[in-house]
Amino acid sequence: MTTDLTTFARGIFDAQPFSGFLGAELTEVGEGSAEIRVGNRKELQQQHGFIHGGVISYLADNSLTFAGGLALGGDALTAEYKINYVKPALGDTIIARAKAVVTTRRQAVCTCSIFAVGDDGEKLVAVAQGTIVAVERSS
Amino acid sequence: MTTDLTTFARGIFDAQPFSGFLGAELTEVGEGSAEIRVGNRKELQQQHGFIHGGVISYLADNSLTFAGGLALGGDALTAEYKINYVKPALGDTIIARAKAVVTTRRQAVCTCSIFAVGDDGEKLVAVAQGTIVAVERSS
Amino acid sequence: MTTDLTTFARGIFDAQPFSGFLGAELTEVGEGSAEIRVGNRKELQQQHGFIHGGVISYLADNSLTFAGGLALGGDALTAEYKINYVKPALGDTIIARAKAVVTTRRQAVCTCSIFAVGDDGEKLVAVAQGTIVAVERSS
Amino acid sequence: MTTDLTTFARGIFDAQPFSGFLGAELTEVGEGSAEIRVGNRKELQQQHGFIHGGVISYLADNSLTFAGGLALGGDALTAEYKINYVKPALGDTIIARAKAVVTTRRQAVCTCSIFAVGDDGEKLVAVAQGTIVAVERSS
Repeated sequence: MTTDLTTFARGIFDAQPFSGFLGAELTEVGEGSAEIRVGNRKELQQQHGFIHGGVISYLADNSLTFAGGLALGGDALTAEYKINYVKPALGDTIIARAKAVVTTRRQAVCTCSIFAVGDDGEKLVAVAQGTIVAVERSS
Repeated sequence: MTTDLTTFARGIFDAQPFSGFLGAELTEVGEGSAEIRVGNRKELQQQHGFIHGGVISYLADNSLTFAGGLALGGDALTAEYKINYVKPALGDTIIARAKAVVTTRRQAVCTCSIFAVGDDGEKLVAVAQGTIVAVERSS
Repeated sequence: MTTDLTTFARGIFDAQPFSGFLGAELTEVGEGSAEIRVGNRKELQQQHGFIHGGVISYLADNSLTFAGGLALGGDALTAEYKINYVKPALGDTIIARAKAVVTTRRQAVCTCSIFAVGDDGEKLVAVAQGTIVAVERSS
Repeated sequence: MTTDLTTFARGIFDAQPFSGFLGAELTEVGEGSAEIRVGNRKELQQQHGFIHGGVISYLADNSLTFAGGLALGGDALTAEYKINYVKPALGDTIIARAKAVVTTRRQAVCTCSIFAVGDDGEKLVAVAQGTIVAVERSS
């Protein structure tokens, strides 16, 4: 994991207005792995006070993209993914941890686990799996 | 489609802080169908100026939930879904249209198409498919 | 739809030993669409006498591949797909109908509906959605 | 893991005509886990000599069902799943290993890795994720 790639990833994350709008942070990056966190607050909830599925989906989508981009070594985008919500999400913070499972030249298949963190520790709330493709640069 | 069910759906949507935070609107409801729109603005974008995948995912997740809930006739939640992003999303407005494909007593399998609307009309940007389950009420 | 492409698709299907082993037939091909049928028989069933999910999955996988390949105009493979089983499959014949929803240069996103056909007509038993990618030919 | 549950799982597997037709074997069962193998042969291949995606899908579908059923403690069925094919499948044997990730009263969300085994060891060829639901028994 070069410093350059870490800097590159953080630079892209910081340039995402939507991530800033949600208050999300890219808290860890590795070779083919990424962790994104967002603090719970009223604006991110649905009608019953749980974190909205759309926020969980954002975390899945974005952590998969970063894990895949880090595995592929450059700019990347999520082509598709699938998510299973397994528990309602309550707590102070939601954490998504994604990693590349298989990387080929142009794409990485990645998986992601999403946890709600409260007084009683981390609880798995969703799992996701998807395809991240390298963005081709025109010269 | 009874007025009661329409009112019920709109009441739930309006009670979602996250939908309000994004500026989304539930623009149509039918028997087993729902349409949600959100206007484009800087806060909803990613690093290249496209609508962030997380916003598209929110629209998929939420329109699937409402289509399924309307098909099931009451409170419901998205158990899982899968989304394919097919084009980058630009334009003034993003519209998600979801419908129930098959409904049984406890669940509805729904599909959703998401369009970006600009000067040149509607363009398909994503398709999704998922399972919506009825929430059981305790008496 | 050129005759060449139809002939090409049928040639590939006939060259699939697994399709022959199951007794499947490629019954229709169009521009970005394909229909595959298989007759019900004991060997294709699970423990309760329903058609095995693996047979339904084969039909989804293969009809998606052909629809995508026909949309892309050449050899193709299924990169990923998702399937929802919505009813148990009984009847004389199972039919999968797939079509390309969006086609770009290198890939087609396709959807598929699978029906069981019995005395009471066609019944939807599964829906699928997936990504088909063009196979690059080395010269 | 009681002997009863192992016996129950093996009894169901042996009662699946399609599994026998493919030559598949349930080679391991645990609490919420299952392994299924099938030997490669001409009948299971596609037009280029790789194992057909339909066979890989059967292995995903069925191993997910057994892992989920073992986690749920009884008869179960796969409601939906998603699969990513990551490499072409060659080799002598294909092995699917599935495990339940989260189990609630009525359903288990399971994941599965599928390997092709040849002279050079095991190679990951596909990953899957899906929902297995308990079958309710009528009294």
